[in-house]
Amino acid sequence: MPAILRADQPDFETRFQALLALKRESAPEVDDVVASILADVRLRGDEALIDYTSRFDRLDLAPDTLAISPEEIAAASLAVPPDEAQALELAAARIEAYHRRQLPENVSFEDEAGAQLGWRWTPVEAAGLYVPGGTASYPSSLLMNAIPARVAGVRRLSVCMPTPGGKVNPLTLLAARLAGVTEIFRIGGAQAIGALAYGTQTVQAVDKIAGPGNAYVAAAKRRVYGTVGIDMIAGPSEILVIADADQNPDWIAMDLLSQAEHDESAQSILLTDSPAMAQAVIAAVERALALLPRRDIAEASWRANGAVILTRDLAQAAEISDRIAPEHLEICTEDAEALSARIRHAGAIFLGAYTPEAIGDYVGGPNHVLPTARSARFSSGLSVLDFMKRTTIARMSPGALAAIGPSAETLARSEGLEAHALSVRLRLDALNEG
Amino acid sequence: MPAILRADQPDFETRFQALLALKRESAPEVDDVVASILADVRLRGDEALIDYTSRFDRLDLAPDTLAISPEEIAAASLAVPPDEAQALELAAARIEAYHRRQLPENVSFEDEAGAQLGWRWTPVEAAGLYVPGGTASYPSSLLMNAIPARVAGVRRLSVCMPTPGGKVNPLTLLAARLAGVTEIFRIGGAQAIGALAYGTQTVQAVDKIAGPGNAYVAAAKRRVYGTVGIDMIAGPSEILVIADADQNPDWIAMDLLSQAEHDESAQSILLTDSPAMAQAVIAAVERALALLPRRDIAEASWRANGAVILTRDLAQAAEISDRIAPEHLEICTEDAEALSARIRHAGAIFLGAYTPEAIGDYVGGPNHVLPTARSARFSSGLSVLDFMKRTTIARMSPGALAAIGPSAETLARSEGLEAHALSVRLRLDALNEG
Repeated sequence: MPAILRADQPDFETRFQALLALKRESAPEVDDVVASILADVRLRGDEALIDYTSRFDRLDLAPDTLAISPEEIAAASLAVPPDEAQALELAAARIEAYHRRQLPENVSFEDEAGAQLGWRWTPVEAAGLYVPGGTASYPSSLLMNAIPARVAGVRRLSVCMPTPGGKVNPLTLLAARLAGVTEIFRIGGAQAIGALAYGTQTVQAVDKIAGPGNAYVAAAKRRVYGTVGIDMIAGPSEILVIADADQNPDWIAMDLLSQAEHDESAQSILLTDSPAMAQAVIAAVERALALLPRRDIAEASWRANGAVILTRDLAQAAEISDRIAPEHLEICTEDAEALSARIRHAGAIFLGAYTPEAIGDYVGGPNHVLPTARSARFSSGLSVLDFMKRTTIARMSPGALAAIGPSAETLARSEGLEAHALSVRLRLDALNEG
Repeated sequence: MPAILRADQPDFETRFQALLALKRESAPEVDDVVASILADVRLRGDEALIDYTSRFDRLDLAPDTLAISPEEIAAASLAVPPDEAQALELAAARIEAYHRRQLPENVSFEDEAGAQLGWRWTPVEAAGLYVPGGTASYPSSLLMNAIPARVAGVRRLSVCMPTPGGKVNPLTLLAARLAGVTEIFRIGGAQAIGALAYGTQTVQAVDKIAGPGNAYVAAAKRRVYGTVGIDMIAGPSEILVIADADQNPDWIAMDLLSQAEHDESAQSILLTDSPAMAQAVIAAVERALALLPRRDIAEASWRANGAVILTRDLAQAAEISDRIAPEHLEICTEDAEALSARIRHAGAIFLGAYTPEAIGDYVGGPNHVLPTARSARFSSGLSVLDFMKRTTIARMSPGALAAIGPSAETLARSEGLEAHALSVRLRLDALNEG
């Protein structure tokens, strides 16, 4: 049974705080190992990559087989069953169409002082994407990371993915092809992050690294941050469903389990103003679990981290949801839009009974890389902007400098920065003489 | 003498790589100390803040004097000389006007499948700003950090600043008042970051922390990242000036020194296609140094980290500038706009002879918190977006789900995620029956 909390009970606040504080992820201490791998890749380049790949992935590579060849990629693409290929193409097209709308506009204006001001967006030159190996090698995840980069205008897009024992998921290679990836290297772990950050003889360094990974990959990303940019460090997945009395409990149960089946550390929470719905969903989860090949994982997640919270009304459910700031928020209520307007903190919102969260994982269009562990309070899902940066631009006319320069001079001097003050004063004097 | 490089010489690439690799900042190993301070603040709250402030800032506080009172702030504001107050007000107004244009728009559209898609921006609920103490307590920096947060719509804006021996810069308090800061605490160092991240009895926790600080503050920000959001970790300041033959060498020399005077680790680089201009600027720097109260710092920075690079032409100067990706780029050339259009990587660009970088530090309007250490390759200066986050929104109509749901089901099953597949399938079956 998951935790059942009632918002009208005196112990609610205590129990809710305990739920918020639930530490679901135990990050192993891998920092020292990661530091030594990174240093080794920096020093020995390809040779280090080949050694670690032999050791960790039982795969013998040479410099000229570090990259998966275009022929292999083409062959793998042909091996994908047609229905999967079509589904992936639909997903890629929809993700691209949504993300194209995120392309920002440059701004340029002249203000009342005569200053020409604005900013300009430019893409990151080269990006690296990490794709985990084994069961977590998700083609959908490759699309979600690569397409925003491509739409941003990133010229070079390198993928690193471990291929333990040499095994590759053909659908992942097709996804890379659809997303316009430039190169794919069969390397993983901290060594792959090192290669992308520092470059080796074969792997060119990039400017930004994105994509999920295990504890080693996450620690390596933290360490190379600064040398390159990184995306977020994602934690276990979460879903919060707000449901009223008139929903189908079987649908909601399956939505809750679609997060729970990812990982024992995943978290699924139901908020409802209907005690009957709460009971019905809890019962439906038990029935649904029996249908799942990943039942053990889903069940462990639901029992340990799942929660059902009974609220006074739907407005209170929205308030509680905001305190949690969930990664995924499903609003299954009669007027979902109205309730959604009250929400301030969530990674992604799914409205109405016909928008299961799984739609967003694959074909909805919005990105499925979203802030976890309450970080939706201060961060956003992956977007085109993560692969762009903004340069501010200013041009003073002589008149503009005459108007605002003296204030800059005053402030510079008040901060004890005389060269700052003089760099303005020399020009003002020239204007006065002129 | 700074390094002088000629782009047409055979050793250029080697010397340029050495310049890029120049490690200007030696970060002391403070991580263990910081970890213990953070843990202590988390455990003992106000008591820990009071202890550390007594120890590090020689200042005895009680819970009710941790915050600077509104009366003190009002009194300090009155103590500011009128010309400084007016200059600060002009700066605040111009910074606000520029940043208001950064407010993003929400998007909502229906696509051809009948899916309602979009996203919505919301402000971070509460932000904390760190303001360094001592000589680095810059009122301008407070404006640059606080105004974007206020424009974003952040409701609660807390400032922490150490006040060694109880000394406060009245101009900084006035800046806080102008920027609409909610509360100011006289605490600094890692303990201040801990208070903002975890909260204490007196200091409420925030969601995002911004602002510069010393090595302890930087290490503390890295550590609390995840619990709260943080802005960038800024390094020493840099300027790159591209100048043609027809510029005033005294002006350019002073611009170079306006970065050098910040910090011995600062870096000033001149790129020019004119050997005569290179020599004239080098000579002008020597003359200008004599005028500076912070001459020792500026001179040390210029000698150790300064560089003059002679290029074949201005196009090559733009290429080299992009490889450096400077924090501040001044383009002092005849057709500065045309050259600017070639630039892909820079934090801020200042165009033409009448736009000294110091204008941007105070009154230009754009933010002066900018990416250092070549991180303009992948990141941007501080903006309103740093205090907002985007929630993606999706609503499927039954028709949209029927159109794209089967593809989601196919992909979910190919990834072995049956609950994902079934959450779509249950609804599709209901639609087919209906």
